[in-house]
Amino acid sequence: MTVNKKQENKITIEHGAGGQVMDSLIKNIILKHTDKKNGGIGLHDLDDGASIPHNNENIVITTDSHVVRPIFFPGGDIGRLAVSGTINDLSVMGAKPIALTSALILEEGLEIEVVEKTINSLFKTAQEAEVDIVTGDTKVMEAGELDKIIINTTGIGYTNHPISDSGLKPGDKIILTGSVGNHGLSILSHREGFNFKSNIKSDVKPINKIIDKALEIGGVTAMKDPTRGGLSKSINEMASKANVNIELKENKIPIKKEVKSASEILGIDPMSVANEGIAIIGVKPEKANEILEKLKKIDGAKDTAVIGTVKEGKGKVTLETTIGGKRYIEPPAGDPIPRVC
Amino acid sequence: MTVNKKQENKITIEHGAGGQVMDSLIKNIILKHTDKKNGGIGLHDLDDGASIPHNNENIVITTDSHVVRPIFFPGGDIGRLAVSGTINDLSVMGAKPIALTSALILEEGLEIEVVEKTINSLFKTAQEAEVDIVTGDTKVMEAGELDKIIINTTGIGYTNHPISDSGLKPGDKIILTGSVGNHGLSILSHREGFNFKSNIKSDVKPINKIIDKALEIGGVTAMKDPTRGGLSKSINEMASKANVNIELKENKIPIKKEVKSASEILGIDPMSVANEGIAIIGVKPEKANEILEKLKKIDGAKDTAVIGTVKEGKGKVTLETTIGGKRYIEPPAGDPIPRVC
Ligand SMILES: Nc1ncnc2c1ncn2[C@@H]1O[C@H](COP(=O)(O)OP(=O)(O)OP(=O)(O)O)[C@@H](O)[C@H]1O
Ligand SMILES: Nc1ncnc2c1ncn2[C@@H]1O[C@H](COP(=O)(O)OP(=O)(O)OP(=O)(O)O)[C@@H](O)[C@H]1O
Ligand SMILES: [Mg+2]
Ligand SMILES: [Mg+2]
Ligand SMILES: [Mg+2]
Ligand SMILES: [Mg+2]
Ligand SMILES: [Mg+2]
Ligand SMILES: [Mg+2]
Repeated sequence: MTVNKKQENKITIEHGAGGQVMDSLIKNIILKHTDKKNGGIGLHDLDDGASIPHNNENIVITTDSHVVRPIFFPGGDIGRLAVSGTINDLSVMGAKPIALTSALILEEGLEIEVVEKTINSLFKTAQEAEVDIVTGDTKVMEAGELDKIIINTTGIGYTNHPISDSGLKPGDKIILTGSVGNHGLSILSHREGFNFKSNIKSDVKPINKIIDKALEIGGVTAMKDPTRGGLSKSINEMASKANVNIELKENKIPIKKEVKSASEILGIDPMSVANEGIAIIGVKPEKANEILEKLKKIDGAKDTAVIGTVKEGKGKVTLETTIGGKRYIEPPAGDPIPRVC
Repeated sequence: MTVNKKQENKITIEHGAGGQVMDSLIKNIILKHTDKKNGGIGLHDLDDGASIPHNNENIVITTDSHVVRPIFFPGGDIGRLAVSGTINDLSVMGAKPIALTSALILEEGLEIEVVEKTINSLFKTAQEAEVDIVTGDTKVMEAGELDKIIINTTGIGYTNHPISDSGLKPGDKIILTGSVGNHGLSILSHREGFNFKSNIKSDVKPINKIIDKALEIGGVTAMKDPTRGGLSKSINEMASKANVNIELKENKIPIKKEVKSASEILGIDPMSVANEGIAIIGVKPEKANEILEKLKKIDGAKDTAVIGTVKEGKGKVTLETTIGGKRYIEPPAGDPIPRVC
């Protein structure tokens, strides 16, 4: 009893895994503080970032620290991830990214060459997204006090119309801009050492231009990037925040063959692992087809699909399976893959 | 030879100590990347943050990760530090802070109570500064992979007139808004275990209201907060960036008796240790007195003093000692106290 009690009072890996355990930590220790939301999207909205109304416009801000292991993985590295993750959070808030910060925390003894390779990737990815890195910070911790490197990136952007993750309405279509599981499974299979036969690559990338195209067409009601906790977590959040049900169709959810088989071998649900290069977009039904067709023409969004429909309801997500059954999709307690981003 | 060569290629504590060793790392691996400065203060200016012109205004952004040990120290804690550090960087850029992010990285096994205490202090300090924390991130690293807790805070603010750290002109007066060394020496003497007899407390605090008062009076030409590397580092940076000399008077530089004696006992130069609650303000001579008198009336700035004068020159800083001698103040290689902020 005493031991259990003690463990309950300590931080566990799941407290940082993006699922329900993390959410309850945040609710318990952070949301009790006042939120002076001035009409924008604030702390209590638990969205991908915050929006601050200013002079008939909104500045959007978002932050993420990146602790991924290994630092270099198939399809990307911590530098590319740090830029993409933050740009994507700005993008799914409906903002045009304008600047990023880059805060490095390094372990004493780390090869400078490793830092340099990471920084090169960071700047290259920022250039790809056409966003400037404007300021940063560098700290060093003693050997043994930090595992290699952490990068925090914070991004700001502007928009006239912030898009929350809570705006779904019955009738809306759910679009996913790419296949699920690539990032999480690439990390895990690399760690498990079986990348010799699998070809799973992370699809980590900035998706601001993909999102721009959807916004240009219009009809977008809600967006979210399904990072830690994967599609299961994000889609449940969108359903419960909007107090609607969502019906997904399994055979419409794009998944690569190699991701599917790796997740079976590893016993991991590909719907619950972090993605770093896709977004969930809720759209008005009359715009769904045009967005689908236009996005499918963009590199990095070729697998875009309409994966479901929003219904009246109370925040439940169901999946119609390939064999015609139906089951609930629950939000995971946490992402099954630690240190995935 | 081979061993030395290898060490040269590795990150050392000094690479994160805010002095010349860090500066050269940043120059070598970061500044080689293009800076698409759009008229604002950018990456290559190496100022306290960046400014981005937008609609006849400027948005200012700055970031700092905080790795201080111990987490709770005399006069403050990592939460108070994380908020103050970032607000102060915004303030010395001439910006009115409007929002902060809070990104936590926690070690598995850390007591939740410790996290909660830290978060309470973070929000309390933000409230003191009248700035909202609007969004954040929470990551957990495995036990042994991170020493307890890191907090990154990024801040944004607005200003019509960004103030750089490079704007000094011959004739300007140098104002310091408080006494030197309190933060660094409080950390160090606490670590060395002799806080039983010393009363050194960190003066870590948000100084936005103090800076507001100076800006309201006017005549401010340059500002910087003398954090890692202390007054020696910051004042040298201000001198060399403006290509002027600065003459400081030792007997005008406020220092608490207990800080002076602790630094003598510990063999530490109080001019080179991090401060977290003061700013260096360059002002036109005709405004110096009014700013001095007004700031001295504000809590937290009672020790404000005019500590020197700007002269024509080539970036050198001299100190006229109490006994009438004169010596150069050099920028330190790094802050002598590791993990000070
Ligand atoms: N330490 C914190 N302080 C304040 N808010 C936090 C903190 N940690 C998380 N949050 C808030 O909780 C919500 C969920 O955070 P989360 O990091 O899961 O979002 P995300 O960045 O979109 O996802 P990911 O980090 O997986 O990319 C966000 O609104 C975030 O602002
Ligand atoms: N990793 C980085 N990427 C980009 N710029 C960086 C990085 N690290 C530091 N810089 C830049 O170098 C300059 C000096 O950084 P430094 O952190 O010393 O400033 P500061 O925040 O004012 O001081 P302190 O961190 O001691 O409070 C700043 O302009 C900062 O933007
Ligand atoms: Mg997100
Ligand atoms: Mg994110
Ligand atoms: Mg800094
Ligand atoms: Mg500074
Ligand atoms: Mg700083
Ligand atoms: Mg996050």
